[in-house]
Amino acid sequence: MNASERSWARELDHRRSRLLEMMASKDCDAAIVFGSQGRTENFRYLTNFVPVLGDMWAIAPRHEAMLCVLNFTWQLEEARRLSAIEDWRGELEAVPVVLEVLAAHAPARIAVVGFDRIPAVAVDAIRTRFPKAELVDLSADVARHRRIKSDLELAYLREAGRVTDLALDVLYEEIEIGMTERELAARLDYAMQRHGAECAFPSCVISGVDDPIPIRAPTDRRIASGDSVMVDLGAAVAGYNADASRTVVIGRPTREQEDAWAVVTNAYDAALAAIRPGAPCTNVHRAAADVITDAGFTLAHRIGHGIGLATSFEWPSLDTEAAPLEAGMTFCVEPGVYRVGVGNMKLEDDVLVTDDGYELLTNARRTLAPVR
Amino acid sequence: MNASERSWARELDHRRSRLLEMMASKDCDAAIVFGSQGRTENFRYLTNFVPVLGDMWAIAPRHEAMLCVLNFTWQLEEARRLSAIEDWRGELEAVPVVLEVLAAHAPARIAVVGFDRIPAVAVDAIRTRFPKAELVDLSADVARHRRIKSDLELAYLREAGRVTDLALDVLYEEIEIGMTERELAARLDYAMQRHGAECAFPSCVISGVDDPIPIRAPTDRRIASGDSVMVDLGAAVAGYNADASRTVVIGRPTREQEDAWAVVTNAYDAALAAIRPGAPCTNVHRAAADVITDAGFTLAHRIGHGIGLATSFEWPSLDTEAAPLEAGMTFCVEPGVYRVGVGNMKLEDDVLVTDDGYELLTNARRTLAPVR
Repeated sequence: MNASERSWARELDHRRSRLLEMMASKDCDAAIVFGSQGRTENFRYLTNFVPVLGDMWAIAPRHEAMLCVLNFTWQLEEARRLSAIEDWRGELEAVPVVLEVLAAHAPARIAVVGFDRIPAVAVDAIRTRFPKAELVDLSADVARHRRIKSDLELAYLREAGRVTDLALDVLYEEIEIGMTERELAARLDYAMQRHGAECAFPSCVISGVDDPIPIRAPTDRRIASGDSVMVDLGAAVAGYNADASRTVVIGRPTREQEDAWAVVTNAYDAALAAIRPGAPCTNVHRAAADVITDAGFTLAHRIGHGIGLATSFEWPSLDTEAAPLEAGMTFCVEPGVYRVGVGNMKLEDDVLVTDDGYELLTNARRTLAPVR
Repeated sequence: MNASERSWARELDHRRSRLLEMMASKDCDAAIVFGSQGRTENFRYLTNFVPVLGDMWAIAPRHEAMLCVLNFTWQLEEARRLSAIEDWRGELEAVPVVLEVLAAHAPARIAVVGFDRIPAVAVDAIRTRFPKAELVDLSADVARHRRIKSDLELAYLREAGRVTDLALDVLYEEIEIGMTERELAARLDYAMQRHGAECAFPSCVISGVDDPIPIRAPTDRRIASGDSVMVDLGAAVAGYNADASRTVVIGRPTREQEDAWAVVTNAYDAALAAIRPGAPCTNVHRAAADVITDAGFTLAHRIGHGIGLATSFEWPSLDTEAAPLEAGMTFCVEPGVYRVGVGNMKLEDDVLVTDDGYELLTNARRTLAPVR
């Protein structure tokens, strides 16, 4: 075991101990942790591994070692090394193996982590095999433990932020008239990947002034003088995701573009100023949302959401979550305005709540002008 | 409507008519078509649209127009244009809307397309709301209709193949000693994206001679003299996926590498020679598998699988499907050998079954040597 593997082994041991405590407190005999492509956060949290393909199942008996089942056999050695779990199995049909393993523990109560994504066919099979067992959704409890990031997690989140900044530099330095949205998005993805990260999601590029929309796939539209060009991207390192946006205007911004951008940056500043331990999440949302609506713009979306092993689906949704911020929490702040004639303008950075405020995890320049 | 939109409107009308026929034959009052990130094929087949985020639901009442529900509101106009469906709704909580729409049709039998991925929580909600209704899994019936590709689909599959070839050219022309697997994979992804495609899946690059494995994520390992370097990649155009692999050896191949590569190319040739209308799918598998095992190598995986709106999960799995090939079917042929000392060697192309044999959809060079 090298130093990184030792750090991970300690981290995973801690996470799994907490899972066992949660299982004990809910009187569960075993837990199932489910992940699927696109929604891997629960499985990765407890295993530090995600396969390139297929579903992923971890089974944690109350009194024995955790084991995992994938749909194929090819990455099992890698999975063992990263997870510090010995028993990995690959079976095209994973559910029967999961049932078999569970049966050895004759469970009366089965905890499920990732319940919202588990397929009905799998749950039907579990209910048929264990007709008297109760399924206990532990997803929210585990998600609560994921709120405060460890030092190990923060190291990955900072690295994801650093690579995201490098991709944003590419936006500022390489964008030019005539380039298609797709070409720019491809360059942003390439920048993140060549610097050792994965893309948390395909980079979003939206150009022009007459298509007010916060997100869509990049198109073959060519960037033109006068455009607002908004990008939304994020690097992922060891599963830890960044999520950041910048907006540039090609050529001299109009008065309307400058005014709209001032609203965005004021909303951004107001959101950051509201971040401190003890403040309800909704305070951050409201501070920025008020700036946007007071300026006469429609609020098109929430001002931010958690970042970590997921992005859009990560706790907290700042608009609805009244729980107080605590040091160690991480989320994005992403005020935006979208109006015909102005275009799409958003500024988004990731923050870590600290003892006395916040630390920015993404730090690329925030100017409306590209670098010439 | 432009020409492309008209072609799509006709195509979609045809697909939806067939869905209605299937519903009628199974006496269903309405159908639900479910898609989730990573498994979008059923939803896209009936709508020509996939959102950048979240689940996707289409509801097809037997006697009224189809309508769709997404988790957010931002791409609804784009969805309307691409799908020729008027009624698109965006709701953070989609399931209650789906239930509401279904309730208007008081369904006794509800067809479900994409049943294997539909979350248990959604099915529980449907069963609670319609306790007497029967859920009828139509997924296999719809998949059967997707087997034979239309001219429109073939145009996209050919384009996906063309862009895949351009990325494979990058492999042959840009690979060099010292480049990391990640850097090469990033260049391959970039090549596909800048030529107007998406990546069907993140490009796979595996280098060296001592890690026998058919698939894993690229690493920071630097490509060295003597390496076998296997790449597996595919472009996606309008959701239609290519899936191709090449292997190169850096420097002069050893006798063992040359011999292993001869096994791969012989297996590949044997598979292609077995392709003709009327031949069982398993014939293609067996022809190539026999070459591999007769040469003393282990058969690590099936020789191929369907390609279309999905890749690995697309019908047919050549190793188990005894149904006869028909003109218009598309699949990949991907024999490979994996052995310590030799490395990983795979050759994969996509084929269309024609009236008298096959047409290759991917056509990049197939040499073991890079281009110098």
